Amino acid sequence: MQKIDLRSDTVTQPTPAMRQAMFDAPLGDDCYGDDPTVLKLEALAADKLGKEAALFVPSGTFGNQLALFTHCRRGDEVIIEDNSHIVSHEAGAAAVIAGVHMRAVEGVNGLMAVEQIERRIRVGDDIHEPRTGLICLENAHSNGRVLPLAAMADTAALAREYGVPVHLDGARVFNAAASLGCDAREVVRHVDSVMFCLSKGLAAPVGSMLAGREDFIEQARRKRKLMGGGLRQAGVLAAPGILALTEMTARLDEDHANARYLAEGLAKLPCVDINPADTHINLVWFRFNADIDSAELMAALEEAGFLANPPHMGMMRLVTHWQVSRADIDRLLEALQRVLSD
Amino acid sequence: MQKIDLRSDTVTQPTPAMRQAMFDAPLGDDCYGDDPTVLKLEALAADKLGKEAALFVPSGTFGNQLALFTHCRRGDEVIIEDNSHIVSHEAGAAAVIAGVHMRAVEGVNGLMAVEQIERRIRVGDDIHEPRTGLICLENAHSNGRVLPLAAMADTAALAREYGVPVHLDGARVFNAAASLGCDAREVVRHVDSVMFCLSKGLAAPVGSMLAGREDFIEQARRKRKLMGGGLRQAGVLAAPGILALTEMTARLDEDHANARYLAEGLAKLPCVDINPADTHINLVWFRFNADIDSAELMAALEEAGFLANPPHMGMMRLVTHWQVSRADIDRLLEALQRVLSD
Amino acid sequence: MQKIDLRSDTVTQPTPAMRQAMFDAPLGDDCYGDDPTVLKLEALAADKLGKEAALFVPSGTFGNQLALFTHCRRGDEVIIEDNSHIVSHEAGAAAVIAGVHMRAVEGVNGLMAVEQIERRIRVGDDIHEPRTGLICLENAHSNGRVLPLAAMADTAALAREYGVPVHLDGARVFNAAASLGCDAREVVRHVDSVMFCLSKGLAAPVGSMLAGREDFIEQARRKRKLMGGGLRQAGVLAAPGILALTEMTARLDEDHANARYLAEGLAKLPCVDINPADTHINLVWFRFNADIDSAELMAALEEAGFLANPPHMGMMRLVTHWQVSRADIDRLLEALQRVLSD
Amino acid sequence: MQKIDLRSDTVTQPTPAMRQAMFDAPLGDDCYGDDPTVLKLEALAADKLGKEAALFVPSGTFGNQLALFTHCRRGDEVIIEDNSHIVSHEAGAAAVIAGVHMRAVEGVNGLMAVEQIERRIRVGDDIHEPRTGLICLENAHSNGRVLPLAAMADTAALAREYGVPVHLDGARVFNAAASLGCDAREVVRHVDSVMFCLSKGLAAPVGSMLAGREDFIEQARRKRKLMGGGLRQAGVLAAPGILALTEMTARLDEDHANARYLAEGLAKLPCVDINPADTHINLVWFRFNADIDSAELMAALEEAGFLANPPHMGMMRLVTHWQVSRADIDRLLEALQRVLSD
Repeated sequence: MQKIDLRSDTVTQPTPAMRQAMFDAPLGDDCYGDDPTVLKLEALAADKLGKEAALFVPSGTFGNQLALFTHCRRGDEVIIEDNSHIVSHEAGAAAVIAGVHMRAVEGVNGLMAVEQIERRIRVGDDIHEPRTGLICLENAHSNGRVLPLAAMADTAALAREYGVPVHLDGARVFNAAASLGCDAREVVRHVDSVMFCLSKGLAAPVGSMLAGREDFIEQARRKRKLMGGGLRQAGVLAAPGILALTEMTARLDEDHANARYLAEGLAKLPCVDINPADTHINLVWFRFNADIDSAELMAALEEAGFLANPPHMGMMRLVTHWQVSRADIDRLLEALQRVLSD
Repeated sequence: MQKIDLRSDTVTQPTPAMRQAMFDAPLGDDCYGDDPTVLKLEALAADKLGKEAALFVPSGTFGNQLALFTHCRRGDEVIIEDNSHIVSHEAGAAAVIAGVHMRAVEGVNGLMAVEQIERRIRVGDDIHEPRTGLICLENAHSNGRVLPLAAMADTAALAREYGVPVHLDGARVFNAAASLGCDAREVVRHVDSVMFCLSKGLAAPVGSMLAGREDFIEQARRKRKLMGGGLRQAGVLAAPGILALTEMTARLDEDHANARYLAEGLAKLPCVDINPADTHINLVWFRFNADIDSAELMAALEEAGFLANPPHMGMMRLVTHWQVSRADIDRLLEALQRVLSD
Repeated sequence: MQKIDLRSDTVTQPTPAMRQAMFDAPLGDDCYGDDPTVLKLEALAADKLGKEAALFVPSGTFGNQLALFTHCRRGDEVIIEDNSHIVSHEAGAAAVIAGVHMRAVEGVNGLMAVEQIERRIRVGDDIHEPRTGLICLENAHSNGRVLPLAAMADTAALAREYGVPVHLDGARVFNAAASLGCDAREVVRHVDSVMFCLSKGLAAPVGSMLAGREDFIEQARRKRKLMGGGLRQAGVLAAPGILALTEMTARLDEDHANARYLAEGLAKLPCVDINPADTHINLVWFRFNADIDSAELMAALEEAGFLANPPHMGMMRLVTHWQVSRADIDRLLEALQRVLSD
Repeated sequence: MQKIDLRSDTVTQPTPAMRQAMFDAPLGDDCYGDDPTVLKLEALAADKLGKEAALFVPSGTFGNQLALFTHCRRGDEVIIEDNSHIVSHEAGAAAVIAGVHMRAVEGVNGLMAVEQIERRIRVGDDIHEPRTGLICLENAHSNGRVLPLAAMADTAALAREYGVPVHLDGARVFNAAASLGCDAREVVRHVDSVMFCLSKGLAAPVGSMLAGREDFIEQARRKRKLMGGGLRQAGVLAAPGILALTEMTARLDEDHANARYLAEGLAKLPCVDINPADTHINLVWFRFNADIDSAELMAALEEAGFLANPPHMGMMRLVTHWQVSRADIDRLLEALQRVLSD
């Protein structure tokens, strides 16, 4: 029996329609600008986000790092929340490729206060000081929270005042939009560039998009080549990416509802500390408020047919996606009930 | 009518079998090490090259740069032929990502003499001098020549003597093997690492492989993540890659025969300077020994149903691959005969 | 009349004895290891700090960046207090030269809590995560505070537990030692490397020292060359540096007493917010608790014969050193009294 | 007895006048722009070279690397002669600090032909190609030759045509000027920036200058800070630097005459291969055309009171400077005669 995989939404298999789309895709050499399916996806992504242009990149990390590399000069500072993906899960790439500093800020639930940001902005002529090259936001944040639009607008207004661009790590920006009940264009309207993933909750097998102004994307295209991200018949990845954008974005509410349902179930279990209202998207984070036997927990989950990452420092994350049903969650909660009630 | 595309072998469409393989591929999240098709391809590639391990990477440039990044310390020198792909067609990446120097050597037909290499090796303790971190070879060379095995062995012996590793840009290493009439393992037996492309003459849509010792590949895996090359359901690319290795390598002789046939036909044309014996693989390079009207030439080719890159500084390159037949070449030669005889 | 310069202790003129020492210094080419005065200074500095070896470098920024470059691998994280000199006053060099991240921590008065540090240490095998390459402390901190030895010991114990080295930005380490009433060896005993400046309160015209284990200093020597810090007859700078270490360290208490005297005087002035007990060394930081006319203030100071940096965001810094006497401070306080009482 | 040091002109001791100038120099904090002696030297250096502005830097390597860092974007190519100091004796810094490639060209006696340069210039839009960011010349070359002014003019004309700046490593530019019998302004009139050393034949203890247009020097000043080259009372180094420029430049002909005299003497010795006409400046390069016992040679020289670097691959270099007299050379030739005639 196929296990239900709750480790991440990165594990999503492409849908049958996506496999068919790969099979049928008209292809060309994208380094010659010849792949019609890539061109179609790039135009579609730009449109869905209300940006002038978009570029296909191999991964979310690639897209974020390409954004830093394109926005910043070497030695610049990037003001960013300390708990964000770029700080913690991109292998230290920013100091290598873009050659920039993460000026990390300890926010609250992923949100930096405007005053925290302003205090760190450096745009003067003092030759001792690094210059602020970029402000990065992450929405939805990988901690499962969605930043309010008003907070994004305030940060963007501050950034404009100081002439600093804003990049959004929008790996799950369509989850953010679904959670906020708005169009994704609303989420990204205040930022200069945005990266989002086709390969997480949207289920495409591989790939992410970087969107922004035309001249920015033109520069990014050159730097993508330098970083080894110039692909050939990339239409095989763009074809399922198109379905990710046209079909899969519409069903994220279902993942969110399942996640909230899971969170509410967890809240009733012994030893679990969770406020279901904090589960904004498909990422269910919770804490064990007692010492749990991690090995026993993992064994019980596996026996019940589930894959999950073990708790780390008392925190555990379970992720819903198109291959996790309401019934799966009921079974999961039963299994957890059993093991936690022992 | 579909044009016959002679610009490069990077333009190759995947075969119908490759499309079917993508459709059918069992998939997993390769960042979790879970994609069975990727694992199968990596094992297969290692075996085909007689190396301990192999790693899937998004592109040839990515694989070469990852090799430099993994072999070298920052500031090291890489001894390499001046006309090679890494020097000229990877957008200057080596100084950015690996932070190394290309110590370029003007070779003859892509071949550096052992004495040229030895004179540049620096492995002493002088703190003024950069250190030689790597020697890079390219076989087949993008100028269309295949380096003799004896030359590779001599270079490798020199490298071992000085304790310097050797990397092979083997984007077309199976073309080299076919041309030499030997197993690819013979071509790479003397090098520490090799990159080859699934996406050129082997017709896979996207992807390349880096192969070498297990510990080297383990380090490269971490740095691949940093460079944004950690993909998810990469099995959709690995599946056609497997066919590239198992089926397409066997037919490269056909492309080479067609290329030689084209070269021989070109040699009979007015204004063309080519020695057919120099056409070792599927890349046909020639020179116009008179002033040619480039626009007229390109228009004539297009009208005859061919795509080609225009001549650059008098040099022109035409490339054969599985979508170019003997009959296509006959038509091409006729078209060239017409336009060059005007 | 020569103005009394309170902008920084970097403005200190060499003493007459230092000028004489420059005049008399036996010299050689330090890139050949031939300069006897440099060798003498390096041995002396190592001894004064209880380290195996020391290296002359052109500046404090140079020494700190060389330490990062020598300790860390590219892409590593350096855990460091957000308000420290390396984060704010070294022009963003760390991401350029060492290629590392500053993982900045908001401390209290320049002190990071051990728990804040521990939470950020990453030494596992997860290929998504950057690795912690170094912990940096600054003592005395440029905010004027001295870190307690116990806090340094605790941080060092934590670092050892995780196998992470510790570097001390000890630009004013002799001020810290004087303030703590201990030998400088006590301040640096728990750190793997330390940079200190000959050119601040110690009055040498140019230069700083990096000290640590012999193998570390050997590697740093090579990287110093790469960074352009291999000097020739550097003995002309080392000669006053020797006096900085042998004579000037003994008189720092006088600067500290003057600074405390100034702080106490300031505390009695209208509009000034300062707790004299926070003035640990020769840096007197205070806040204006009312809107001050900065131009008027600066004009009054200049008229009274003082040079100072204007307040920045309400904060002002005045610095004592060997060219500022108790009488100068009395005159300064009178001048401030006049302008602030208007 | 003090040995006569023929290893390099970097070993030169400051003159008594220079020591006095250090003793007397009015000083200030150059990071505040306050050091009158540095300002005087910078104005003087700009004037002596006919450039808008100049900047004091700690070393020749520092100045060259700062020029690369200021002229180029990361990943750019620098066209440069393969045997030049920047390629071979700056520890690989260019790939680390500026993040650029050395596109090394094998010249003849340090001179690249215009065609060799032109063939390597890349200024187009091809995203595969690195861009040419700079052309570097070295005059006088560290091989002892002086490039003809006409060759420099031709290279500069080519560079202008393609919009590529030119930097001169003029570590010994005043030697070049003396050898050419022209003003140094003539040597550098065609280049955008030039670095020269105060500390080689000009005998200042420490320091070099970077000169160019005002905006270039302004940018370089910021990057000098980042590289750790912002010094404090740098006037102690600038004071002898002023004498280097005003007094020592005038006597270089003497060193050159001594070098030529030495070359002519060497030409008469057994086993020595040298064409005295190739000795353009104070660097005397020659080859042993027989197997020489290097240890015996070095011992004989030392016994005769000389310091020299041992031959390397059959080549030996002897250097004249203000502390080497005609009589010293006579004694040296006698000593060599004895050992080589054995």
